[in-house]
Amino acid sequence: MMAVPRPGRTNSEIDAPSSPVLRFGADKPLKLDAGTLLSPFQIAYQTYGTLNDARSNAILVCHALTGDQHVASTNPVTGKPGWWEALIGPGRIIDTNRFFVICSNVLGGCLGSTGPASTNPATGKPYGLDLPIITIRDMVRAQLMLVDHFGIEKLFCVLGGSMGGMQVLEWASTYTERVFSALPIATGARHSSQNIAFHEVGRQAVMADPDWHGGKYFEHGKRPEKGLAVARMAAHITYLSEAALHRKFGRNLQDREALTFGFDADFQIESYLRHQGMTFVDRFDANSYLYMTRSMDYFDLAADHGGRLADAFAGTKTRFCLVSFTSDWLFPTEESRSIVHALNAAGASVSFVEIDTDRGHDAFLLEEPELFAAINGFIGSAARARGLSA
Amino acid sequence: MMAVPRPGRTNSEIDAPSSPVLRFGADKPLKLDAGTLLSPFQIAYQTYGTLNDARSNAILVCHALTGDQHVASTNPVTGKPGWWEALIGPGRIIDTNRFFVICSNVLGGCLGSTGPASTNPATGKPYGLDLPIITIRDMVRAQLMLVDHFGIEKLFCVLGGSMGGMQVLEWASTYTERVFSALPIATGARHSSQNIAFHEVGRQAVMADPDWHGGKYFEHGKRPEKGLAVARMAAHITYLSEAALHRKFGRNLQDREALTFGFDADFQIESYLRHQGMTFVDRFDANSYLYMTRSMDYFDLAADHGGRLADAFAGTKTRFCLVSFTSDWLFPTEESRSIVHALNAAGASVSFVEIDTDRGHDAFLLEEPELFAAINGFIGSAARARGLSA
Repeated sequence: MMAVPRPGRTNSEIDAPSSPVLRFGADKPLKLDAGTLLSPFQIAYQTYGTLNDARSNAILVCHALTGDQHVASTNPVTGKPGWWEALIGPGRIIDTNRFFVICSNVLGGCLGSTGPASTNPATGKPYGLDLPIITIRDMVRAQLMLVDHFGIEKLFCVLGGSMGGMQVLEWASTYTERVFSALPIATGARHSSQNIAFHEVGRQAVMADPDWHGGKYFEHGKRPEKGLAVARMAAHITYLSEAALHRKFGRNLQDREALTFGFDADFQIESYLRHQGMTFVDRFDANSYLYMTRSMDYFDLAADHGGRLADAFAGTKTRFCLVSFTSDWLFPTEESRSIVHALNAAGASVSFVEIDTDRGHDAFLLEEPELFAAINGFIGSAARARGLSA
Repeated sequence: MMAVPRPGRTNSEIDAPSSPVLRFGADKPLKLDAGTLLSPFQIAYQTYGTLNDARSNAILVCHALTGDQHVASTNPVTGKPGWWEALIGPGRIIDTNRFFVICSNVLGGCLGSTGPASTNPATGKPYGLDLPIITIRDMVRAQLMLVDHFGIEKLFCVLGGSMGGMQVLEWASTYTERVFSALPIATGARHSSQNIAFHEVGRQAVMADPDWHGGKYFEHGKRPEKGLAVARMAAHITYLSEAALHRKFGRNLQDREALTFGFDADFQIESYLRHQGMTFVDRFDANSYLYMTRSMDYFDLAADHGGRLADAFAGTKTRFCLVSFTSDWLFPTEESRSIVHALNAAGASVSFVEIDTDRGHDAFLLEEPELFAAINGFIGSAARARGLSA
């Protein structure tokens, strides 16, 4: 069922989500990397399956930049299936008859966890840019409070792709004793200069929109839809490979026999991008997009450990599997390889799979047989090591 | 000397350029690919050196997307040196003591040739989107009229990079008998799906700016500066390689000791991109940017010849040298290689140089020693074949 947006808001999931919510009051503030305390705050989440008596079968899924907690259930805003339903569910590779799967909306998001669109209790108005910058580590700190709430001492596995993979790395680095196995996919231990550049273009596109109003658009009854759509279009190109674009669209014309000699969408790739931009603004909050991109830009695991990535994993007890895709130019294989080298230097148990595909960065969200096989193999072997019956 | 912009206009060079101008009246309309006649119209140009008595020493330089005719002389809008002064001038590799160098502002441009910012004689107002779409072939047709004006039967060489290279290919394909040698650099025989995608993002950024006013911004005393700056920022990323960005900027912070936990330009790459965007809008017309990007998107030399690129060069007498750069992901080497294959199939004289550099697409505008050596060798050998004394 499609939720009815409230006036001015992107969707009705922001302050009163349909997901379960964990609220942390004044007694449990969150100390942010920005140096301030966030309080109160809330985390919206979904779970699938049942936590076993030993509380040893929990898998935490970390979502990507514009993802959400609806990993294996219908998204209440879009009405679409969960974004990883092909992988996670009853009888699936991550079998919810066997595992207890948790996925929470990241802090700074816009689907029920506290973010810039949430009401600032101090003013009664949406936070906008008054919310402190949220880092990947802050997201993970909030997830830890959720995991504690479930009384889970050690997560069986933490997995995720892209920004989700950054959270996996942060988990395994900061809380290795809480993570039995970690599966970071199509990610990096830091955001590259080119990646920051693309994010900056997106932010400038949002901020250039006069409907952004310095972040206070809700108070003006507006939303910077055009700017956010442009940001999404630019980002979307980076999620696909040149080869995939060529295969899917090439120079094919859109519902036309010939060029129109104008600025309408002549080419299919133009219509496709415009569609991506337009549908995105219906489901995502513009300020949240600014915060999410910033959190990725700020991520630099080596810098947090004196410049040496291996030190981020010193003494790790977590077993790792890293996955990259040959055609991913946003997080090229080299990024995963440098993490593998650091993990080797730290003496970690680590396997690494580079998957040959032309689908680019987005491959991690698709039914990619080799990816599913790699996850299946790693989860299976880790479950045996953890003593989880099949 | 910096020119003083007229109110509303990007620069004073649009209708009354400081460059020499060739005007074509009602007796000499230009038949455009769009199917309409353009009349009257004008071409602004620069020349360097002296045309010899045999009129055999003329080199036509074709500029790129945001380039201009000031290839070897100070740009009147920016006050900066000509964009290829390192290559072209007295005693340079393309020695203007020896060669007669011509460079004209492309049709659709904004530095004196007829473009969307020019006054539409039918209305007395700027054309805006009432100017028909200009194709690469239209640009070349107008250049041919300029070459005819000089009484040059056969150009000794036509050269250019990127969009300039597309014009070189069009020249050699359509007017091979007028081109002794051709030097297309960092270009392709068609714009790829990914390239169209980036251009479409730029156009949507411009059009999303309310100051664009459907292209009639001059009449509102406005210019879509924010949208155009975002477009330029996105495009600029594609001109550089990931390696070059990493080398130049990495994750270095901008004049700061630490992250600011905000949305100011923390990273040098952010300041750099913002600067690129801001300075661009001072020198370029937003509608012209739309027209230039569209002309590149529409370029497909094979499609113009029944789908077989070799047929575009059937019976060619021009001698070719193609140059690509290893780190150019906008026009990767593969694009040049497919042109070389087509030229081979057409029995053309062709050489090909792939230059190993991490400077990306922009390498063609830089002092790249291997590029200059390649141009020097090709021009020298072609000059001997043409019987031009050193």
